[in-house]
Amino acid sequence: MNFLAHVFVTPKPAILDPQGKAVVNSLHSLGYDEVTDARLGKLIELKLSGADREAARARVEEMCKRLLANEIIEDYRFDVEEARS
Amino acid sequence: MNFLAHVFVTPKPAILDPQGKAVVNSLHSLGYDEVTDARLGKLIELKLSGADREAARARVEEMCKRLLANEIIEDYRFDVEEARS
Repeated sequence: MNFLAHVFVTPKPAILDPQGKAVVNSLHSLGYDEVTDARLGKLIELKLSGADREAARARVEEMCKRLLANEIIEDYRFDVEEARS
Repeated sequence: MNFLAHVFVTPKPAILDPQGKAVVNSLHSLGYDEVTDARLGKLIELKLSGADREAARARVEEMCKRLLANEIIEDYRFDVEEARS
């Protein structure tokens, strides 16, 4: 079976996020003063195969821990859905 | 009212994604041969205020078009939810 995983990697709340700060400043200079905070993270879309969804989830969890996220400074979450094609 | 917006910016399907390619190669070298494709995008979390959810959505849509996404090479989508605090 084929699956599509969306992995979201975000800086931990206690970690400074200079990119997010730059986004807030840019939005303010464009007149979007209602924006009070921005955090920049990564979205990683994976196509993968697996026996079933639980097996795929377990593998993606491993990939997050070993490569995709740096748990010292980042949080991650993900969802896995069956691929349409 | 305060809102939390999640903006997802991804490379268009026709655009080469060398970062995604690097992720696939790294995953393969770690033994995750079941991964056939990876695309890297950005996740931007915004805190903002607005009169209501529809107004906030309209403003975030504008921000995407003007700053957050480059529509030549990127697609975007977003959701806006009421902030808990």
